[in-house]
Amino acid sequence: MGSDTPQKRSYFEASANFADGSDSPRAFLDRCIAEIEAREGDVQAFEYTNFDAARAAADAATERWQSGNQISPIDGMPVGVKDVMETADMPTGQGSPLFVGTETGRDCAAVVAMREAGAIMVGKTVTTEFAATHPGKTHNPWDLERTPGGSSSGSAAAVGCGMLAAGTGSQVIGSIIRPSGYCGAFGYKPSVGGINRGGSFDGFSQSCTGMIAASLAECWSLTREITSRTGGDAGYVGVTGPMEIPAARKPGRVAMLQTAGWANASDGAKAEWQRARDTMSAAGIDVQDRDSDKKIAAVEDAIANAMELSMTINAWEGRFPLDTYNRDMDASKLSESAHNRLKQAVGMTQDEFAGLLAERDRVRGVYATLNGEFDVCATLSAPGAAPKGLDWTGDPLFTVPTSLVGMPTVTLPVLADEGLPLGLQVIGHTNQDADLFANAGGILELF
Amino acid sequence: MGSDTPQKRSYFEASANFADGSDSPRAFLDRCIAEIEAREGDVQAFEYTNFDAARAAADAATERWQSGNQISPIDGMPVGVKDVMETADMPTGQGSPLFVGTETGRDCAAVVAMREAGAIMVGKTVTTEFAATHPGKTHNPWDLERTPGGSSSGSAAAVGCGMLAAGTGSQVIGSIIRPSGYCGAFGYKPSVGGINRGGSFDGFSQSCTGMIAASLAECWSLTREITSRTGGDAGYVGVTGPMEIPAARKPGRVAMLQTAGWANASDGAKAEWQRARDTMSAAGIDVQDRDSDKKIAAVEDAIANAMELSMTINAWEGRFPLDTYNRDMDASKLSESAHNRLKQAVGMTQDEFAGLLAERDRVRGVYATLNGEFDVCATLSAPGAAPKGLDWTGDPLFTVPTSLVGMPTVTLPVLADEGLPLGLQVIGHTNQDADLFANAGGILELF
Repeated sequence: MGSDTPQKRSYFEASANFADGSDSPRAFLDRCIAEIEAREGDVQAFEYTNFDAARAAADAATERWQSGNQISPIDGMPVGVKDVMETADMPTGQGSPLFVGTETGRDCAAVVAMREAGAIMVGKTVTTEFAATHPGKTHNPWDLERTPGGSSSGSAAAVGCGMLAAGTGSQVIGSIIRPSGYCGAFGYKPSVGGINRGGSFDGFSQSCTGMIAASLAECWSLTREITSRTGGDAGYVGVTGPMEIPAARKPGRVAMLQTAGWANASDGAKAEWQRARDTMSAAGIDVQDRDSDKKIAAVEDAIANAMELSMTINAWEGRFPLDTYNRDMDASKLSESAHNRLKQAVGMTQDEFAGLLAERDRVRGVYATLNGEFDVCATLSAPGAAPKGLDWTGDPLFTVPTSLVGMPTVTLPVLADEGLPLGLQVIGHTNQDADLFANAGGILELF
Repeated sequence: MGSDTPQKRSYFEASANFADGSDSPRAFLDRCIAEIEAREGDVQAFEYTNFDAARAAADAATERWQSGNQISPIDGMPVGVKDVMETADMPTGQGSPLFVGTETGRDCAAVVAMREAGAIMVGKTVTTEFAATHPGKTHNPWDLERTPGGSSSGSAAAVGCGMLAAGTGSQVIGSIIRPSGYCGAFGYKPSVGGINRGGSFDGFSQSCTGMIAASLAECWSLTREITSRTGGDAGYVGVTGPMEIPAARKPGRVAMLQTAGWANASDGAKAEWQRARDTMSAAGIDVQDRDSDKKIAAVEDAIANAMELSMTINAWEGRFPLDTYNRDMDASKLSESAHNRLKQAVGMTQDEFAGLLAERDRVRGVYATLNGEFDVCATLSAPGAAPKGLDWTGDPLFTVPTSLVGMPTVTLPVLADEGLPLGLQVIGHTNQDADLFANAGGILELF
């Protein structure tokens, strides 16, 4: 199986057969482990795995499903945990040589909640250094010479080729949507604050924990099983809505965004953007863009500088802990990009940061003018197929606007470039994540 | 000296004599260490100390001051770090038997910044368990049979008796202002988000890092030396204003608050509240209260339930990490109060939490109506002197409103009850911390 075309592996498809015993969580896990054993040597999606504990947990879930006592729809689901999120039974390495093998002894909030719902933490998935720029070891399962994208590299690669049904991610620039798109997975970045980040080494104000999975329904259920138990970030309610994915609903109006990424988009990607647009139009959806609608044009203008603005906000907010790592640990184990970010932060002033936050608020206000006008926005997940080479995780210009503005976004694996996966990103309105899923489901049915 | 009446030890008073060599950071530190050695057996303010490193740092600061090259006004200042804040050279125990001796290898953001400004981290000061309810070992230096207050017990006790010039604290209910008041120290809780909490085990949405010091000026300078380097919490600018304390300015109008604490206030404390009021009135300040002003009455009504509201918000937000400690560590090492908070959290729903946040927002809106009407509010730091016994850190009803509402507050050690210290709390408007200090300085001059 390892040499075949990558295939996602949906737990929700399998679980329909758990009650009659023709399939089971344990059998599903065994298929995942077989896929991992077949591909991991090439793909390298994991920093650590814990198969023995996973098998024991899957056996317990199997008993529950067979007696009709499953805890939740995700009971028994094999999940990978991005290696910036703490786990009681596995180390948390943060993608840095400074923290190889570091045991914190506790689960992060999201993992506590997923385990309470019965999900199985199979392993820790590779992240770029501190979920930032410097790449990890993972290869794209569709083409081993290409990047899987970052920073949630291991979760996207593992889900993209059916090693797991789902993996957690985090995104402050493009770290969920971009790798999900490159690896052919579904990805979901919630509204800012949407999933409790307690116990995740991820302190940026525009960052979010999110989900990468084999289906939209799995993204949604994992999220709600977490947020119903432990909410969002401190001070945030977190993602709300029905416990199961809202029914698909064809949107009435869609705003097609080009973003600053358009300038870098391949011809193939641009053609796919147009195909997505035509497909929606043909289905009777009113599709507008910057040329036909002034509010969309204003949003395009407002997000044009999203990358620089986000990177500068992140530099200031990331001074800690890089400053203490640089001074109190082995500074030679920090990447060049980490050193550069720290240097940038130390050169900034608090007043400059105040100006950046004010500009971010302004951009958020401009985006909010689309609320009530368009059900969702749509754009690409990236300017093309995953680039060749492992030393760069790809261009985030299509993904950074949602991180800056804080609205929820999903990527649907329905486009292609160079014969490789490309995502159609569907973007909702802040704190209306359930609406986004309904609309994204409606769009998905058109492809 | 250990048996004398406790005296605060101001670094800023001493530093006037550093240039001519008649005093020095090293000599100041030696006086602090002598005080610690005399009193620590009784007071027990520290979990760890690092005198050798402190002396070396003080010698370096001495050289800088003598050559006029001091980094900042706090260069060489001996500071204690509340033991929920990470330090690279000392363990971080969080007041819990689960974390005795835990080394994280890094400094929290505030400590990084203070060290960069030249301040000296002398030791880790005792906190209640997880900066919450269960008391630590510290005694009140004014009466060893009484509580120092909590949760920033060690910092308040150490500063109150001159073991240190300053200590850090954190407050989510009353954990800076209450112990500062009980121990005769100045205390400052900033506007919510005011000081970067990166690397502090303190994830509550209404919690703040703050300062306990021998003077208002030291509270202010420490804060600005931190925030000018590393700002506030992620997404917050942090405390802004001049680098040195704003000039004292007698306020024009002051709102006297009773809070829900009035019902528990001792006769002595009530008399002190009245004395404070009369002193301000006699100085020509227009002082109003709930009986004379409808907006104040509305605020008193809005904050009447601050304690229950705050405790319930904190319970939900504190589910993590208590849940994983309870499940993955030795649950018998969690206090009864921690178990009770976790039980409360597990029994709550996300919808209930949403209702609590909405109510908090409503209360914040009511308090905001005082902005432009009153320069500051004033009230007690506690309903009386520190209570006898070490099994309860005292009544937080006078302090919890500022935590809930998020406005900045200071306590001035100018009142007394039972011959023991009691604080006059002066409360400002959110994100106008510099204004608060100007007004508090003006009030201080009246006593």
